[in-house]
Amino acid sequence: MSDEPVIFKSHKPFVLESGAVLPELTIAYHTYGTLNADRSNVVWVCHALTANSDVADWWPHTVEKGAFLDPEKWYVVCANILGSHYGTTGPLHVNPENGKPYYDKFPQFTIRDMVGVHRLLANQLGIAGIHALVGSSVGGFQAVEWAALEPERFGRLVLIATDAKASPWTIAVDETQRMAIKADPTFGEERDDAGLAGLAAARAIGLLTYRGPEGYNLSQQDAADAPDDAPHRACTYQRYQGEKLIRRYNAYSYVAILDAFDTHDVGRGRGGVEKALAAVKCPALVVGITTDIIFTVPEMKRLADLLPNARYREIASPFGHDGFLVEYKQLNEILTPFINGQ
Amino acid sequence: MSDEPVIFKSHKPFVLESGAVLPELTIAYHTYGTLNADRSNVVWVCHALTANSDVADWWPHTVEKGAFLDPEKWYVVCANILGSHYGTTGPLHVNPENGKPYYDKFPQFTIRDMVGVHRLLANQLGIAGIHALVGSSVGGFQAVEWAALEPERFGRLVLIATDAKASPWTIAVDETQRMAIKADPTFGEERDDAGLAGLAAARAIGLLTYRGPEGYNLSQQDAADAPDDAPHRACTYQRYQGEKLIRRYNAYSYVAILDAFDTHDVGRGRGGVEKALAAVKCPALVVGITTDIIFTVPEMKRLADLLPNARYREIASPFGHDGFLVEYKQLNEILTPFINGQ
Repeated sequence: MSDEPVIFKSHKPFVLESGAVLPELTIAYHTYGTLNADRSNVVWVCHALTANSDVADWWPHTVEKGAFLDPEKWYVVCANILGSHYGTTGPLHVNPENGKPYYDKFPQFTIRDMVGVHRLLANQLGIAGIHALVGSSVGGFQAVEWAALEPERFGRLVLIATDAKASPWTIAVDETQRMAIKADPTFGEERDDAGLAGLAAARAIGLLTYRGPEGYNLSQQDAADAPDDAPHRACTYQRYQGEKLIRRYNAYSYVAILDAFDTHDVGRGRGGVEKALAAVKCPALVVGITTDIIFTVPEMKRLADLLPNARYREIASPFGHDGFLVEYKQLNEILTPFINGQ
Repeated sequence: MSDEPVIFKSHKPFVLESGAVLPELTIAYHTYGTLNADRSNVVWVCHALTANSDVADWWPHTVEKGAFLDPEKWYVVCANILGSHYGTTGPLHVNPENGKPYYDKFPQFTIRDMVGVHRLLANQLGIAGIHALVGSSVGGFQAVEWAALEPERFGRLVLIATDAKASPWTIAVDETQRMAIKADPTFGEERDDAGLAGLAAARAIGLLTYRGPEGYNLSQQDAADAPDDAPHRACTYQRYQGEKLIRRYNAYSYVAILDAFDTHDVGRGRGGVEKALAAVKCPALVVGITTDIIFTVPEMKRLADLLPNARYREIASPFGHDGFLVEYKQLNEILTPFINGQ
């Protein structure tokens, strides 16, 4: 993060969907721009797996003048997700009940619990109605869940490369990452850096799905004059990305958040996905990416079909799921007028 | 394997592409049908990663009457690949120079070395010309390499879901699997069952790429009446497949063979892929699978374009790369007339 987040501490117990209780809660968040007098200019952004609340840092060229998160126009809020490494209560935090970090004893939580944390913060900030709610990737899990929970709260909804329910495919990818982390027997030890070799492998698995065949074949070709015995660029890239993550993240947060992803189902207790989405009547924009192998184009179109007032738009990109980070020009073109109310 | 392979032992040193020497060589192989008098009815099959020489076992409904490997018509040969767990010399074999298993000291080898082993066996069996050479997946790596090495030897060439050179994408998938195996610190220990937790995770990674999004979403949906706290079917499947592999395979063979895959490049020392393929003038059939995310349709079409006498055919399947195993009906329809000379 380029700027430190603001920290809100709640000393009230926070009850999770499972019934387990966090005795207190810390929420790390960023805001950009100024809340206007009638509090009508809030754009709330939900972030994905290993990102943080500093949207301007992880989503380049979106929090700037003329972009869809223009801070001269909007009061942009992003909260770090429950369980994360970046400030909000998570596995490395001390459990006040025993004075020791939670590690793998952090209670299991769900996407709904992440949304519960966002709601707590919104209320704390005095925010009632939210002009636009934006979620990309598993940030979209939170956004669609929040919209299904409080459909009247949002003026507009933007869902980018995401889904209303975790699919068998995304769950299989998550489980494979957990298998890699647990192949490292230091996972489970009571220290912040447990399981890091496994976490590096898990990250490499994630990357395969973020970039996909086209992304790798475009960006990781060996140099034409590379010696036959030189390491392949694709190998170096996978290891480098794994090492980069383990310098900034921890395996307990990673696994706890993967577990939460697998619980995602806006239809749970609401009579199914179709019924839950039918209640979300605000204008919605659903954005797919041509080469995304995590949330494929047919799935994104289906999501748009199930929302009563949604348009589907597509980003053309060879970079797979990562297109939502790379193709900010297309995103700005598509999202800016929509968030501006057109 | 349902039937034990035949074992051929060569006591001559086998020199690898790297210059390293295996003091002796064991080759495990299967044959089906009868070699005819003029030795003109050989169909040679090359197998993939964790398969074995028993084609009838791993490729159902292909070695049977009327199928493309009809044993009443053809003398079908398949040799277990160098480095494998299934009989041909590999990391669990004893190094005659020190009387101990090789384990992670097995010399690095290439797809060309695998082909060198196939050639040795073909010569041993008195086979000169080969009517048809068939390779699917990384079996196709061997087939296209062998065809480029001895283009006059083959009457017909069949390449299914494969490529003429390892792509950055396939290399990244291999590296990710190695990272998972090496996250298990028992990998490197001098025992047959070293690294098995890592190998289970590696297998799960492989499966993601074999089946892809459509395959998982079709076959691993949770039951509609599954309780919310029941394990997801996709999770159970990944773990089950990992455990199934580690009961039948070893991590040293797996890594050694992945390493060999990454060396695949028919163009190496032949002036590039285009030039190497231009020399393969026999009729060739290139078969792609609609949903394959390892060897994608555009890549398969390109392979067909680069072979001077090739046709491209496509298998429609939701099962991704695994379509080459699942869709035997379509394969038999496409391959049988081609191998019969039409």
